[in-house]
Amino acid sequence: MEYYGGVEAGGTKFVCLVGRGPEDILGETRFPTGDPQATLARAVEFFAGQPPVRAVGVACFGPLDLDPTSPTYGYITTTPKPGWAFTEVAGYLRQALGLPVAFDTDVNGAALGEQRWGAARGLDPVLYLTVGTGIGGGGIVNGRPLHGLVHPEMGHMRLPHDAQADPYPGYCRFHGDCFEGLASGPALRERWGQPAEELPTEHPAWELEARYIALALANLVCSLSPRRIVLGGGVMSNRALYPRVRAQVQELLGGYVHSPSLLEEIEAYIVPPALGARAGALGAIALAMHLAGDSTK
Amino acid sequence: MEYYGGVEAGGTKFVCLVGRGPEDILGETRFPTGDPQATLARAVEFFAGQPPVRAVGVACFGPLDLDPTSPTYGYITTTPKPGWAFTEVAGYLRQALGLPVAFDTDVNGAALGEQRWGAARGLDPVLYLTVGTGIGGGGIVNGRPLHGLVHPEMGHMRLPHDAQADPYPGYCRFHGDCFEGLASGPALRERWGQPAEELPTEHPAWELEARYIALALANLVCSLSPRRIVLGGGVMSNRALYPRVRAQVQELLGGYVHSPSLLEEIEAYIVPPALGARAGALGAIALAMHLAGDSTK
Repeated sequence: MEYYGGVEAGGTKFVCLVGRGPEDILGETRFPTGDPQATLARAVEFFAGQPPVRAVGVACFGPLDLDPTSPTYGYITTTPKPGWAFTEVAGYLRQALGLPVAFDTDVNGAALGEQRWGAARGLDPVLYLTVGTGIGGGGIVNGRPLHGLVHPEMGHMRLPHDAQADPYPGYCRFHGDCFEGLASGPALRERWGQPAEELPTEHPAWELEARYIALALANLVCSLSPRRIVLGGGVMSNRALYPRVRAQVQELLGGYVHSPSLLEEIEAYIVPPALGARAGALGAIALAMHLAGDSTK
Repeated sequence: MEYYGGVEAGGTKFVCLVGRGPEDILGETRFPTGDPQATLARAVEFFAGQPPVRAVGVACFGPLDLDPTSPTYGYITTTPKPGWAFTEVAGYLRQALGLPVAFDTDVNGAALGEQRWGAARGLDPVLYLTVGTGIGGGGIVNGRPLHGLVHPEMGHMRLPHDAQADPYPGYCRFHGDCFEGLASGPALRERWGQPAEELPTEHPAWELEARYIALALANLVCSLSPRRIVLGGGVMSNRALYPRVRAQVQELLGGYVHSPSLLEEIEAYIVPPALGARAGALGAIALAMHLAGDSTK
């Protein structure tokens, strides 16, 4: 049995695992994200004390340079996170560990993990969307993570925004009322004057939130045609959102996209993630296994 | 040298080719789309009188069933076109010709043809969008055409629609003011009282049209991250639209998606198709070559 390393490189915490799936974890550590040098060194130190692995995957907060022909391949690029802009991540770990390193967005990692072991097992294309402090999306299409020019930035899609019904101008410092600007956790807090987790279930915030998420998902159904949508993130911990989002997706598509998954089985089509608190790092292990061509389950 | 058949099955005309690329065409015919039986029989008759081919590709108007496990795989499904709803296309041709048949949407065919021989040579992912009587999009992602649950329906994305600036309610009988409802040829004609080709270049119609197309493209950049966008269709025969669309895409993304293709070289990023009047049927030949694993140029 060969084992793999996984690093969830998040904006607030790092999670490192050694294993080969959710049922087969040999070692684990988590620590807060500090300055780049110390944080990456701590990840290297963890793997040094673990059984040997064949490859390491990194599921990383972005934006990232994923173009292998670029001089800054494997870097975090224009992040507003202090100290982290233009930090080399993949190359640093490759050199420090002497191992192949798979590098992708946190959401592409999560999509791959959910496809391999979780809520979208064996399905392709898969869409993974997280609605929390930020909004991001990833996908697996035709067997591989989705990126190209750069990588998806699904949180920055523009959606219909009725300024009379919802005069809130939006939170995004680039686009104002893009999807993230209207529906992320910080947007909810600013619009309603209290954090999402304190808004009661019957608060009108939730119907509006479901509307924006459904608009984004309907557009993603129209553009990517995923076989399943895994919808997670802090805002979705209000489980009452799921049936509202599903109902509005159906209403928005108006029966035009003709599929039993949408028309009759939407509870099994738009689903919460299945991998829990280790999702990111397991996704990173899935990236490493994908890189190594290891398709055992 | 092996040759291939290509069928552009359009709502108004069929184009059939035998060849292996734009510079190597052995035979060609075009005829108007009549009732399904007679039209498909005419395609079969054409191929019977041609040199033998290894496989046939069909780039077909939709919606289509592309799920190989479905009992109606290879059918046109819920089209409003009289007589054509639930017509078996791929299976009929396979049986009548005794050949492997590749079957996909007209726009996925066009995307594959443009990737192989045209305006997006060798690039992946590629997005192809047509704005004409209808609006449709296709893509090649990780080496294969993009479909899954069904296939993309990019014309039915919902976009910001400022009803004060543009009170037109939209043309789509399913969704009203979706992308196609706001920006297709029939929407232009209904909103402005004259057909698109008669609207003068300085008419305000064009700035609004560029806006909707740019909103859709910005969203598709955020969801698919294509390396090139091929933008065609009857409405785009007004070439003055291209610079307007490009400028608005840049403005909408606001520098957030960090790529020289968007920031400095957008003239080479959003481009017209290169394959001309044979684009659809050449795309169909590309589908047949893809099916047969023929990667010669």
